[in-house]
Amino acid sequence: MPIIKVEILEGRSREQKRELAQVLTRETARICACSEASIFVVIDDVKKENWAVGGTLLADKYPD
Amino acid sequence: MPIIKVEILEGRSREQKRELAQVLTRETARICACSEASIFVVIDDVKKENWAVGGTLLADKYPD
Amino acid sequence: MPIIKVEILEGRSREQKRELAQVLTRETARICACSEASIFVVIDDVKKENWAVGGTLLADKYPD
Amino acid sequence: MPIIKVEILEGRSREQKRELAQVLTRETARICACSEASIFVVIDDVKKENWAVGGTLLADKYPD
Amino acid sequence: MPIIKVEILEGRSREQKRELAQVLTRETARICACSEASIFVVIDDVKKENWAVGGTLLADKYPD
Amino acid sequence: MPIIKVEILEGRSREQKRELAQVLTRETARICACSEASIFVVIDDVKKENWAVGGTLLADKYPD
Repeated sequence: MPIIKVEILEGRSREQKRELAQVLTRETARICACSEASIFVVIDDVKKENWAVGGTLLADKYPD
Repeated sequence: MPIIKVEILEGRSREQKRELAQVLTRETARICACSEASIFVVIDDVKKENWAVGGTLLADKYPD
Repeated sequence: MPIIKVEILEGRSREQKRELAQVLTRETARICACSEASIFVVIDDVKKENWAVGGTLLADKYPD
Repeated sequence: MPIIKVEILEGRSREQKRELAQVLTRETARICACSEASIFVVIDDVKKENWAVGGTLLADKYPD
Repeated sequence: MPIIKVEILEGRSREQKRELAQVLTRETARICACSEASIFVVIDDVKKENWAVGGTLLADKYPD
Repeated sequence: MPIIKVEILEGRSREQKRELAQVLTRETARICACSEASIFVVIDDVKKENWAVGGTLLADKYPD
């Protein structure tokens, strides 16, 4: 059943996403005692221009 | 009032989205006894690389 | 695959939720050409004190 | 602590997003009596094709 | 159009929520050049037991 | 930076939530090469009456 939504800064590789999905699913199933098959992981790639911490856009804090 | 967020795999046509918005709005208004005008439907197109079921990325399960 | 998140004002009955889940699932599966079994519907009951339209809390607009 | 998620129609400028992040963070910190540094603002640019009000896609209501 | 979702720790008063809705709506309308009437603000009161920063539940970091 | 939102069925213990927050934070930091301190985990306890799979409320599928 669990739905895991991960909002991360844009730029992670498919390999990182593959491992993230695998590990978060496995660990959540173990800890919550539910089947891995029932777990959804949805990743949201957020642009630096769309994420602010402490009022500052990350695009300004970490310009390309 | 209701806000309906639909996360679906990327690739649906505008026609499908048009019908989805129309039908989900109509049926929600009917069932929840509220006005259609007050209902927001927001669709999120999710890449196969960003969606995992049972720990496997759909991009791996269903490669292009 | 689709995940349908419905944010509605607190107070709907289980019957309404049952029908909402059934109908939104059936229609989304039909329109998006996917299996009903793969669709999650998650309903979020929102208190009137936690929902504002046009800057006014619904708890103030529609006091109990 | 607060997380502020802002879903807006695609097309706002970086200047608008910069001011939005700054002002929403400042005002939320003031009103909720918490530190600005702990506040995340995440902006989601939504395509007109993915947003419906009253059952009508904004892409149909306001064609380009 | 904008939808502003604010996740905050449980415990804020209705007055704080009233001002938060008012100010976030007013400022978002000003900055994004849209009408206040079209803006939804939805507040989510999150229990300390359901929020972790740096891997630690806030219920453990700040016990009642 | 990452925000991890976990929607799970109501009823998990604080110990499960503690471990979930710890492990998801640690693994996400490792995989995404970011600091644990910057990661938020927000857990949403969903009632069985508010979650449907395949069009059936879990409250109906698994009555108390």
